[in-house]
Amino acid sequence: MSKRKICVVVTARPSYSRIKTALKAIQAHPKLELQLVVAASALLGRYGNAINYIEEDGFKIDEKVFIVLEGENKTSMAKTTGLGVMELANTFYNLKPDAVITIADRFETIATSIAASYQNIPLIHIQGGEVTGNIDEKVRHANTKLADIHFVASEDAKTRVLKMGEDENYVFNTGCPSIDIAFKVNKNRSLNFDPIEKYGGVGNKIDWKEGYIVVMQHPVTTEYKESRENVYKTLKAVHELGLPTFWFWPNVDSGADGTSKGIRSYREEHQPDNIHFFKNMKPEDFLRLLCNSKCLVGNSSVGIRECAFLGVPVVNIGTRQHGRQRGENVIDVPYDEIAIKEGVLNRLEMQNKITQNNIYGSGKSGEKMADILANIELRFHKTIMY
Amino acid sequence: MSKRKICVVVTARPSYSRIKTALKAIQAHPKLELQLVVAASALLGRYGNAINYIEEDGFKIDEKVFIVLEGENKTSMAKTTGLGVMELANTFYNLKPDAVITIADRFETIATSIAASYQNIPLIHIQGGEVTGNIDEKVRHANTKLADIHFVASEDAKTRVLKMGEDENYVFNTGCPSIDIAFKVNKNRSLNFDPIEKYGGVGNKIDWKEGYIVVMQHPVTTEYKESRENVYKTLKAVHELGLPTFWFWPNVDSGADGTSKGIRSYREEHQPDNIHFFKNMKPEDFLRLLCNSKCLVGNSSVGIRECAFLGVPVVNIGTRQHGRQRGENVIDVPYDEIAIKEGVLNRLEMQNKITQNNIYGSGKSGEKMADILANIELRFHKTIMY
Amino acid sequence: MSKRKICVVVTARPSYSRIKTALKAIQAHPKLELQLVVAASALLGRYGNAINYIEEDGFKIDEKVFIVLEGENKTSMAKTTGLGVMELANTFYNLKPDAVITIADRFETIATSIAASYQNIPLIHIQGGEVTGNIDEKVRHANTKLADIHFVASEDAKTRVLKMGEDENYVFNTGCPSIDIAFKVNKNRSLNFDPIEKYGGVGNKIDWKEGYIVVMQHPVTTEYKESRENVYKTLKAVHELGLPTFWFWPNVDSGADGTSKGIRSYREEHQPDNIHFFKNMKPEDFLRLLCNSKCLVGNSSVGIRECAFLGVPVVNIGTRQHGRQRGENVIDVPYDEIAIKEGVLNRLEMQNKITQNNIYGSGKSGEKMADILANIELRFHKTIMY
Amino acid sequence: MSKRKICVVVTARPSYSRIKTALKAIQAHPKLELQLVVAASALLGRYGNAINYIEEDGFKIDEKVFIVLEGENKTSMAKTTGLGVMELANTFYNLKPDAVITIADRFETIATSIAASYQNIPLIHIQGGEVTGNIDEKVRHANTKLADIHFVASEDAKTRVLKMGEDENYVFNTGCPSIDIAFKVNKNRSLNFDPIEKYGGVGNKIDWKEGYIVVMQHPVTTEYKESRENVYKTLKAVHELGLPTFWFWPNVDSGADGTSKGIRSYREEHQPDNIHFFKNMKPEDFLRLLCNSKCLVGNSSVGIRECAFLGVPVVNIGTRQHGRQRGENVIDVPYDEIAIKEGVLNRLEMQNKITQNNIYGSGKSGEKMADILANIELRFHKTIMY
Repeated sequence: MSKRKICVVVTARPSYSRIKTALKAIQAHPKLELQLVVAASALLGRYGNAINYIEEDGFKIDEKVFIVLEGENKTSMAKTTGLGVMELANTFYNLKPDAVITIADRFETIATSIAASYQNIPLIHIQGGEVTGNIDEKVRHANTKLADIHFVASEDAKTRVLKMGEDENYVFNTGCPSIDIAFKVNKNRSLNFDPIEKYGGVGNKIDWKEGYIVVMQHPVTTEYKESRENVYKTLKAVHELGLPTFWFWPNVDSGADGTSKGIRSYREEHQPDNIHFFKNMKPEDFLRLLCNSKCLVGNSSVGIRECAFLGVPVVNIGTRQHGRQRGENVIDVPYDEIAIKEGVLNRLEMQNKITQNNIYGSGKSGEKMADILANIELRFHKTIMY
Repeated sequence: MSKRKICVVVTARPSYSRIKTALKAIQAHPKLELQLVVAASALLGRYGNAINYIEEDGFKIDEKVFIVLEGENKTSMAKTTGLGVMELANTFYNLKPDAVITIADRFETIATSIAASYQNIPLIHIQGGEVTGNIDEKVRHANTKLADIHFVASEDAKTRVLKMGEDENYVFNTGCPSIDIAFKVNKNRSLNFDPIEKYGGVGNKIDWKEGYIVVMQHPVTTEYKESRENVYKTLKAVHELGLPTFWFWPNVDSGADGTSKGIRSYREEHQPDNIHFFKNMKPEDFLRLLCNSKCLVGNSSVGIRECAFLGVPVVNIGTRQHGRQRGENVIDVPYDEIAIKEGVLNRLEMQNKITQNNIYGSGKSGEKMADILANIELRFHKTIMY
Repeated sequence: MSKRKICVVVTARPSYSRIKTALKAIQAHPKLELQLVVAASALLGRYGNAINYIEEDGFKIDEKVFIVLEGENKTSMAKTTGLGVMELANTFYNLKPDAVITIADRFETIATSIAASYQNIPLIHIQGGEVTGNIDEKVRHANTKLADIHFVASEDAKTRVLKMGEDENYVFNTGCPSIDIAFKVNKNRSLNFDPIEKYGGVGNKIDWKEGYIVVMQHPVTTEYKESRENVYKTLKAVHELGLPTFWFWPNVDSGADGTSKGIRSYREEHQPDNIHFFKNMKPEDFLRLLCNSKCLVGNSSVGIRECAFLGVPVVNIGTRQHGRQRGENVIDVPYDEIAIKEGVLNRLEMQNKITQNNIYGSGKSGEKMADILANIELRFHKTIMY
Repeated sequence: MSKRKICVVVTARPSYSRIKTALKAIQAHPKLELQLVVAASALLGRYGNAINYIEEDGFKIDEKVFIVLEGENKTSMAKTTGLGVMELANTFYNLKPDAVITIADRFETIATSIAASYQNIPLIHIQGGEVTGNIDEKVRHANTKLADIHFVASEDAKTRVLKMGEDENYVFNTGCPSIDIAFKVNKNRSLNFDPIEKYGGVGNKIDWKEGYIVVMQHPVTTEYKESRENVYKTLKAVHELGLPTFWFWPNVDSGADGTSKGIRSYREEHQPDNIHFFKNMKPEDFLRLLCNSKCLVGNSSVGIRECAFLGVPVVNIGTRQHGRQRGENVIDVPYDEIAIKEGVLNRLEMQNKITQNNIYGSGKSGEKMADILANIELRFHKTIMY
């Protein structure tokens, strides 16, 4: 019997961490064949070169799809998506997959959904049913309505997808594959590398051995203009706290330049000597860095998911993770310098009282997904359940 | 105070009938300014030249957007949509509307939704919440999830949109503007023109004065290959019934050629002398023709909506209108020659027993829409309600 | 040693006839590997389905590239070309050819030229150096300036390409591969099939056995609006002459509808009973039909090339073949009913006095091309020679 | 009488300097109306934000066209061009210009040429007939063959355009408008601003008052991979010479990252304390900076044109300006550290012996162009002259 061809489209660095163990599990499954498409910012150096990590992890890439249109504005975000539909339509026409996987809620993920569903290819959506506060919110739920099968990451999310009218026989709480990586790291949490030595980065060579915090702050699309202002507040708070800090540059989206420029200009003006900056890090290394940190500051979803599983304290800033189910490890603060500082101090105090939890999975998500994909009846025809 | 600019994107002939009275009402409203974009098949001769009707009705067109990619397959349907996103992104960037309206569920309507929502322009979706049986089903609900404001056509539909997690302050049962046209026609139902004289068409000059039936059958996307076979069954049934018949060519979508070719080859083989074929007709004239017919046969949504209001008997064939609320005027039959013939005979009997109903509106939908658009607080930021 | 991969892009039915024997020769050559891309109107039913002929001839198609944008105007011609550049850029990126061949001067052929030359892939242009009277003129010479190697069809053409500043080591008069087919047909010129029986077509079943003429008239781009008027004149002339006539529908380009509509409306009005219409015919059959005709009427380049080799009399109408070297078989007439009729009568008289000539090749063009492609030093870097 | 609408498409910072005085002259001409389109890298911050300069100069921009596709490779260069054709086709359709101007030979300029010529809009090409050594060579001459009117910058160039078969009534040696700016600067050559104070930049605050050199080195497309290596050699030579140096970052094209990365990594490794880096400078200021420099080093065309007129010594490195007519101010050297150093020393010696010349115009090019545009018979139909 011929294997089912499962085509996964990875469009960004964070999406790759979200799917990596599922890719491995699909690849390893006797009834499945993996078709891997890398597209959009995942191909580009200035957004972290996800493609390099993917290749280092031993994956063969079936097609590279260049679609990012320069423009540093919302119009180009829309046009990138349109171009994505056109290019991915060709890709699927040529690869002839039995099913396509689209991941989460970045703006360009809807291109995968349209290119597949319009060609009657069964579509699997990963991480539907969550709640956030900007264009991602619209994109995620639209992906749900275009998809035939749903792999969600929590019970909360499953409830929401079902309420939206999806068929319960096609909605699965698999947990998030990112937890699979955390699961492995959790078995041995020691920091077995020197971050600056291994990853270089820029800024002062801070003395992190006595303890450090980690910062990762992304722009929020609907707050485009404020990105720069907001990151300044975090920078100021972190600078003033004076703790050794590893700061990660943001992913791209239409406000990326706001945030990045904010960081650049703060650095030039203030040369914060307690902060060392990284572009990116291997997911395992990043999680290991978090395990050994005092806390994570910013608005990354890693704070909500992996840090829940690993029991790492988190200061979550602003609206970006709004509405996502969270564990006791998280404290929420607004875009406010004083609130951020207080948040960090609070987490330092709580550090040893935080327990690990399984809201977002228990470490076998990739395998669960592969098993379902191998055995479920694929369909591309659905009707709302009410 | 400057007027609110409401940009409406019309992409097909049937969408125009669905929105025409709303366009008039927006145009006439003292607080609103209409921006009219005509795109996709609405611009093309071989899909009925909707643009001509629009211009004849006195509308000024702000932009024409050519996006239909030839290919006669599903890949080109996807690529047309992708190109639509790109082109409409420019259009909205240039026109700077305060809100954009996307209509119903044709595949390319999601291009309007993406181009507007990704640029943070409030999006109004018309005719969400309905249920059908193919790609339109996915597109319609995805449009709902991308949209900020919903104008639905029935209570059924409203309930569904709310269940999907939309905010009740932004969901309005306005009825369908197509009923506004039926409302006018209903005041004087007489057939005040000679159809063949006024519209030409091809085929025998049938003697329709003693009674006739009307047929309109569209292809169904997920049944792509069967389009030809299915239309053959209807042709045979109608041919054998021998009643004077006006037959309307289908709209385009990816199976259009199947249906059109079916009709063409049946004509060449059998030269059915009781059937006269039309390409299209002004909406008012078409409704008037229906009012005076014995029944409508096929799978057009006109049978479900306008015919409910007008009390015209309908033989609805196959799955295309599956799941849409219907009145007692409709009898459903499968793609089957005998069932179709029996359906027609049944309707001929029932003809005088059918009453008119208001499921899809009472004739003031366009005005209702304009009033809401003028006064509602526009927003482009929403969160699922559960 | 690995074979040189030669990628040929066929975008239209007439281009295929121009290149077919070269495709066969490349395929058969021990040092070459053929990569065949079929694109644009060559894929579409309403432009003659060239793809079917290509597949029937036993070629494997490496990629199909859909780019024709509907619009029936010049804007869509430009946009089709732009889309062609984008899609073919991907195609070449994936196929990684050692050289790419672009054919002649249709508007979309420049897409092939740009997609190849911009990616530093050596580009071969077929049939440069000719002269015509519309956008093709610009496209052809621009193709020459983007190309690295030139296969021209006549001495005239070679001289022109050299004058434009190309390097004589890279310009070859190979003749036109279309003559290779004529060469085979010429060995046995008998009409070994019944045209109407084999190809159907529409219109009266004319009695062609005692002699017939053939008509093929294409629209001329810069005379867009006059296409309809011009074809009317030819129709009237041919109708009035009353000779049994086989008429071939035009290829597509932006005026196609003008010509096609002209033919359709003339047929409806006048029902010319001496004319039988064909959509298309296998090239060999078409040439055989010409060999046995009294003359060819219209503006097809077949009249200039193949008919020169075969010694078939030609009435060439209007400006489309303006500036192309021609043999004594051709008489030129303007768009004028009387002139056309006189032209035909003149050719009927001359019929037996016309000799065959080799202006456009002697029947080995395909093989010559393959040999050069196998042995020439490929380059993608050139400088004007003065 | 209505004014002739002349639409100029500016796609990059250097093109703007090439056309600025012509824009002013068109704007000022009583019989002309300027339509200004800014596209491609001219819109983007990381390629020097030409748009800001254009707006500061008081021009109203009729349309902004975003087309640059990220990808850092040749495929994306082709796709950017294809997208440019599509977008500019719309632009011209909407603006309805009487003529379109395309500038020089950057890869995306052919998009302007196709979008105009395919829509039968008369096309003027600026700076045809020159000779260089990469894809620009092909693009420039293809632009010539698509254009109807030619404004060339030197007698050499005029001769070449005529040889290519263009009609002498439509080829004009107007000189280069960039010389018009040099002409103004030449009237008062003093350095009336402090470069570092006015433009910031990065690197050491060099002491330039006793003399300095200027460097501007762009990547060369066909030497894609060597860009980084080549710029390293120049950096090393300039660093070792130890003269105070102002270095300008390169424009974008597909190798831009190679050059830019080369500069960045050299700076990090060697921190050359005699070099100060600028992103860009107003054209007048830049020319003034050159007038007062000891010499210009690199491969910019400014060295060939403006520096000829201004009598500034130039060390021209490598193949980029290959084949362009040059004055005695230029010495050519290969990509070689020692040769570059010797070249600079040679120019320092010759500094006072160099005279100014008018090869590329005498300072009235913009006005000449406007006058011709106002009075010439526009056409979009041409035939090669032999």
